[in-house]
Amino acid sequence: MFYQEPALQYEVTVEEPDPQFGKLLQQAIGGQEGEMRVALQYMFQAWALPPEYDEFRQLLMETAAEELGHIEMLATAVTKNLRGADAQLDAEADQHPLGESVMGGQNPRTLLSSGLSAMPVDSNGVPFTGGYVVASGHLAADLYANVMAESTGRLLASRLYELTDDPGMEEMLSYLIARDTMHQNQWLEALDALDDPHPIPSSFPQEQENQSVNYSFMSTAREQQPDPELPWTQGTSPDGKGEFEFMADQPGGNVPTVPAPAPMLHSDPNE
Amino acid sequence: MFYQEPALQYEVTVEEPDPQFGKLLQQAIGGQEGEMRVALQYMFQAWALPPEYDEFRQLLMETAAEELGHIEMLATAVTKNLRGADAQLDAEADQHPLGESVMGGQNPRTLLSSGLSAMPVDSNGVPFTGGYVVASGHLAADLYANVMAESTGRLLASRLYELTDDPGMEEMLSYLIARDTMHQNQWLEALDALDDPHPIPSSFPQEQENQSVNYSFMSTAREQQPDPELPWTQGTSPDGKGEFEFMADQPGGNVPTVPAPAPMLHSDPNE
Amino acid sequence: MFYQEPALQYEVTVEEPDPQFGKLLQQAIGGQEGEMRVALQYMFQAWALPPEYDEFRQLLMETAAEELGHIEMLATAVTKNLRGADAQLDAEADQHPLGESVMGGQNPRTLLSSGLSAMPVDSNGVPFTGGYVVASGHLAADLYANVMAESTGRLLASRLYELTDDPGMEEMLSYLIARDTMHQNQWLEALDALDDPHPIPSSFPQEQENQSVNYSFMSTAREQQPDPELPWTQGTSPDGKGEFEFMADQPGGNVPTVPAPAPMLHSDPNE
Amino acid sequence: MFYQEPALQYEVTVEEPDPQFGKLLQQAIGGQEGEMRVALQYMFQAWALPPEYDEFRQLLMETAAEELGHIEMLATAVTKNLRGADAQLDAEADQHPLGESVMGGQNPRTLLSSGLSAMPVDSNGVPFTGGYVVASGHLAADLYANVMAESTGRLLASRLYELTDDPGMEEMLSYLIARDTMHQNQWLEALDALDDPHPIPSSFPQEQENQSVNYSFMSTAREQQPDPELPWTQGTSPDGKGEFEFMADQPGGNVPTVPAPAPMLHSDPNE
Amino acid sequence: MFYQEPALQYEVTVEEPDPQFGKLLQQAIGGQEGEMRVALQYMFQAWALPPEYDEFRQLLMETAAEELGHIEMLATAVTKNLRGADAQLDAEADQHPLGESVMGGQNPRTLLSSGLSAMPVDSNGVPFTGGYVVASGHLAADLYANVMAESTGRLLASRLYELTDDPGMEEMLSYLIARDTMHQNQWLEALDALDDPHPIPSSFPQEQENQSVNYSFMSTAREQQPDPELPWTQGTSPDGKGEFEFMADQPGGNVPTVPAPAPMLHSDPNE
Amino acid sequence: MFYQEPALQYEVTVEEPDPQFGKLLQQAIGGQEGEMRVALQYMFQAWALPPEYDEFRQLLMETAAEELGHIEMLATAVTKNLRGADAQLDAEADQHPLGESVMGGQNPRTLLSSGLSAMPVDSNGVPFTGGYVVASGHLAADLYANVMAESTGRLLASRLYELTDDPGMEEMLSYLIARDTMHQNQWLEALDALDDPHPIPSSFPQEQENQSVNYSFMSTAREQQPDPELPWTQGTSPDGKGEFEFMADQPGGNVPTVPAPAPMLHSDPNE
Repeated sequence: MFYQEPALQYEVTVEEPDPQFGKLLQQAIGGQEGEMRVALQYMFQAWALPPEYDEFRQLLMETAAEELGHIEMLATAVTKNLRGADAQLDAEADQHPLGESVMGGQNPRTLLSSGLSAMPVDSNGVPFTGGYVVASGHLAADLYANVMAESTGRLLASRLYELTDDPGMEEMLSYLIARDTMHQNQWLEALDALDDPHPIPSSFPQEQENQSVNYSFMSTAREQQPDPELPWTQGTSPDGKGEFEFMADQPGGNVPTVPAPAPMLHSDPNE
Repeated sequence: MFYQEPALQYEVTVEEPDPQFGKLLQQAIGGQEGEMRVALQYMFQAWALPPEYDEFRQLLMETAAEELGHIEMLATAVTKNLRGADAQLDAEADQHPLGESVMGGQNPRTLLSSGLSAMPVDSNGVPFTGGYVVASGHLAADLYANVMAESTGRLLASRLYELTDDPGMEEMLSYLIARDTMHQNQWLEALDALDDPHPIPSSFPQEQENQSVNYSFMSTAREQQPDPELPWTQGTSPDGKGEFEFMADQPGGNVPTVPAPAPMLHSDPNE
Repeated sequence: MFYQEPALQYEVTVEEPDPQFGKLLQQAIGGQEGEMRVALQYMFQAWALPPEYDEFRQLLMETAAEELGHIEMLATAVTKNLRGADAQLDAEADQHPLGESVMGGQNPRTLLSSGLSAMPVDSNGVPFTGGYVVASGHLAADLYANVMAESTGRLLASRLYELTDDPGMEEMLSYLIARDTMHQNQWLEALDALDDPHPIPSSFPQEQENQSVNYSFMSTAREQQPDPELPWTQGTSPDGKGEFEFMADQPGGNVPTVPAPAPMLHSDPNE
Repeated sequence: MFYQEPALQYEVTVEEPDPQFGKLLQQAIGGQEGEMRVALQYMFQAWALPPEYDEFRQLLMETAAEELGHIEMLATAVTKNLRGADAQLDAEADQHPLGESVMGGQNPRTLLSSGLSAMPVDSNGVPFTGGYVVASGHLAADLYANVMAESTGRLLASRLYELTDDPGMEEMLSYLIARDTMHQNQWLEALDALDDPHPIPSSFPQEQENQSVNYSFMSTAREQQPDPELPWTQGTSPDGKGEFEFMADQPGGNVPTVPAPAPMLHSDPNE
Repeated sequence: MFYQEPALQYEVTVEEPDPQFGKLLQQAIGGQEGEMRVALQYMFQAWALPPEYDEFRQLLMETAAEELGHIEMLATAVTKNLRGADAQLDAEADQHPLGESVMGGQNPRTLLSSGLSAMPVDSNGVPFTGGYVVASGHLAADLYANVMAESTGRLLASRLYELTDDPGMEEMLSYLIARDTMHQNQWLEALDALDDPHPIPSSFPQEQENQSVNYSFMSTAREQQPDPELPWTQGTSPDGKGEFEFMADQPGGNVPTVPAPAPMLHSDPNE
Repeated sequence: MFYQEPALQYEVTVEEPDPQFGKLLQQAIGGQEGEMRVALQYMFQAWALPPEYDEFRQLLMETAAEELGHIEMLATAVTKNLRGADAQLDAEADQHPLGESVMGGQNPRTLLSSGLSAMPVDSNGVPFTGGYVVASGHLAADLYANVMAESTGRLLASRLYELTDDPGMEEMLSYLIARDTMHQNQWLEALDALDDPHPIPSSFPQEQENQSVNYSFMSTAREQQPDPELPWTQGTSPDGKGEFEFMADQPGGNVPTVPAPAPMLHSDPNE
């Protein structure tokens, strides 16, 4: 169950509104690396967990609610950047005053569809999709998805930080980057708190997997190559359950033959 | 540059064609956890790497080509399962012989659009999308995406394994599961081979992130709670660069006020 | 800023788990008429409002947080329906015990991708998209979108109510239907609380619209028809600003001629 | 059954071709607020109606055919704006003559994929989707969807009007805005012509909805607030069937516990 | 400009309503091979043509309007199949009377979202997308797209024909298949009516294409193979402008090296 | 089964990096006309073919592998264009040095999400979708899809050729255009190598199609017109199986009446 307060989670100010930067910020709202993804991802992961994983469920829900507040912060920042610069619009309406910075760039829907406010889309203007959410029902797989999400999220925020010199935007991003630091670390810590889950899922018995290729680096080079003697072709594997080896070629199976479909499917061009 | 041979990478046989199982296999082709995703993801990640990461580029390309072969194996398996059962179709065409197992279930496009063969869609019949691909330009973030992809991929293959008792399908899945074991391990090993990249991206100077919240577990509970003393609220963080602490409440910022858009946007309902 | 508590907003119990019904409930989570849509829609609408509409902003945010709790209730219901029935799975794993009710129907990803838990998709298994969200920056247009959303939402919940006889599910839906009643009414009330906004947007001066067709019912019948004398062909219009009239034909303009594109676009098949 | 004539429904002329404006017009063709949506929406709504609603079916079909003509008008306008400015292209082809106005902005597919002509996409270049269409089978819900569509459509056209000063474009938009005025009004009138349909669907018996919360404004504020005494917290509801009341907190239900999935789903990271 | 009449283009009757077949018919409405695609495709192609191709523009528009009528016929057929079987629903509502045939199969949105009527989606329940539409601005390329669309469309209709034995449905499909025959032929005839457009676009001067590989069959076999002496490795090419030859290997270029991105993009994991 | 080599299929050099052009090249990677589409399309078509069409299967697989190499070439070109121009970024980071050419245009995700490298999206930044792939199970229909794909692909490459004057880019495009010439021709040749497949599918018996309309040009003009005496209204049809005739009107069927849905669907607004 959720509650809300009118205040933002953290201060958001914009000194020099920059519509172009406002549009870039959309990536952090509705993008593959954005806050809508993590907020929803953490919720759906949490809701799948049975009672014995209740501490993890709590951890996920605590963070999901925080991420909702990040969407709100970013939406505020987008709108302040987009609208702050339009004060003089009417005086000169005939000269397309929004100019290159708003109409001429990506995502003109910001102007046409939302009246210069934030939208559930990415910086290309592509709508958010539930297809970004990873919630597999397996906590360890999900935690790796979360480490990845916080890594690409922090990367995005770092890049955005370089693209502004507005003090308010820098402060907001400095806050969000710090939170990504924490979240990356908490998901890694949560992985450590599990019994050894590797290879994921560890409940699948390894004696049922093909044991001649489960720790073999398989080369697909056209001309067979010698073992390059790299960390992933020799030595003990990170899961501690095998020894890497080099395999210079793919095993090679049958040449596939598939049946023709029944005549009622009308698939034969020569009939 | 790519080459091909008619033989499959590994034997694919189907003893008792099962159209329903054939449709489930589509998830491993065009789904979020499927082989199209990893094949393309590894390619785009590789193509972004500059020469100093050439060993990693090679690693990614070697594996990408292997994954293409997995799509081919799975496509063969799908078509054999779908078509193998349709031999008697014409004799009894008036009785909807494909029945529940083909038409009555999910993804009737398998019948209508492809003539009972594999398609670039998932088991729900939703088309593959480039939105699944993570290729951030940052190798460590990408490698976590790969660990995640091979974890959810191995999870999917394990679930599929439980849903068949066809010896040919079990053997194929036993092979694919083994390869996922290897790939999970090789990406973890590759992460180890990097200098310490945490928090990702490590090139963003931590003194520029908000240092009052970068290792704080922030509770969003409605009623403030005491520190639950869990691994993610105390102790050294996994990146070794901070000490976890518990923060019972969100910092709280300003109540946001956004400007009204210019009148020319016709957004005021009372005007 | 958002907060959460472990308890659900309202009791969710399932007496007789029904995987098929669990899958239908997905429509109320990630579908066009679902709770993800309204939760996000109300947020983005709120975040676009300037201070003079603060009461409406509050109204929207209060309700958005409630809708998040509805997603949570429904996700719980989905998972209880899907998983409650799988207790005997292992004893008979070779016989595809999940059978028609899980694998044979729509959305097998419920089994393969989420381990029998809720997902951000609709009942067809199509991912939620930000394209469902209407947040135009104009409050009156948005409020009509909300009346529509609560109408189709209540319709969906009513249909779902007819498709179950589980007392727990009936009670949950009885609650959600009641909330939709309230929300429909509150958005209609909020429309009333605006100055007369019709035609939306009322700020566009009607003397600039083509006044020969702005209250004319335009027939597109092949053979011209007499005025059918219906409420929309005569009498005063609902906005009180015009008189309906019947127009038996479309005005008819020029036959369009578009220029050929420049030769460099290589668009001429005869060159 | 449909017929067509070469003439446009209304004159479309462009005096000063403006490629940038041409691209903005795409929103009115393939966007969420565009003419493809309403044309298809009205058709699918009409086709679902049984004979007792034949007058409404006619109303919907009359208007659907008109909207098809609006797509045609807008497509003509897009192409005239895009192509009219490219006459001198070849003389100076080496200098990227299309420049910022065509290539540098959003939707370069206009140039690359369609040879500077209209496309079934929005102004961001995102393809039209059937997911925009609302056709619920319930006429009152559908009519609210139509009021909303004509409201956001008229809003879009008003914004576009402000962004051009080409007399031909102003005249075309003046016509389209007028038609949106009519259509908003006709759908409101059609709602009035129904028996009282509120709350939608009125056929669901209100005694089966939870009567303790069906007219209660439910606050989700973290700190409980007093009744703000607003139109939606007191007084008679717009449907005339209840009295609004203020509820300072959410009811609160059980803490959800979901079963663990069967072991065959391999979802337990500690096994 | 478009007109309409209440009558269908051709009789649609259903003797034995079959909800399952009704759902399959959705593929012919909103699917990749469906009527929405061709109706829109022909329109957008037509609207791009300059006056010298006016006969082709007329041809396209004549057919587009016909295809709109096919959507209407199919929508009628879908709804008749879905609803005709639900007469006894209420008497036995507690027993899930719609049963396997409606709820248990694909696309439960047919029941939940549209009240058992047609929708702008395919048989998998995936929404129609403008991404199916091919309208390149080049008439010859577009005509090949049309031949393809009518070929896959006729294939789909033929498969649907085999899956019903309802006389009304057979008659409707017999009509639609015949129209596809005509349309395939008319597009082929239209291609013949152009000056020789091959290779498309013929306006690109072939002396500017790489003349060492423009008529060479390039083998990508791992092991170099001899010329298989097939129609596409020797003899005159269909465009009459070259001689096929066999090339046993790919030319092979540089090993690609891409620059590292600027440090401000934070892409180096070792920094 | 696939193999790879580090070298590109053909040389890719960029003399004057042009970020804007790099973004346009994305259309040839992930667009409707791009190389991802053809590579995957040819694979899925090949995998559906039974042994008697083995020569065609080989043909398709040989070409699919070549197309994978084209994606690689284009990805290299994109990244070289995007990154080559950013060398001086840091010195002047505060002045948004990437400026209009990168941030101000379409697809800012190129900067934010991929660190200035290629992505599986089109030039609008819309992700690649499996919905582009045509693989119907019928070889002749598929071959027409391939002719179309290579026609729109060659058209795209020709347009791109006009938009650059970088010698390296011209040489690369000259190569790709040449390959499209070959591929267009090889698919046309493959069509010729089939027995007469028209009308596709030829296995559907024409005596079962409605023979009164299968070679009739059906006018949809509002006012009936005389036969325009065009190649598609008279003479023998291209399939040689009929004589074109002109039909001045649509046949016209019943006025459709669909049943009302059962009351449990709550679709009647007056109940």
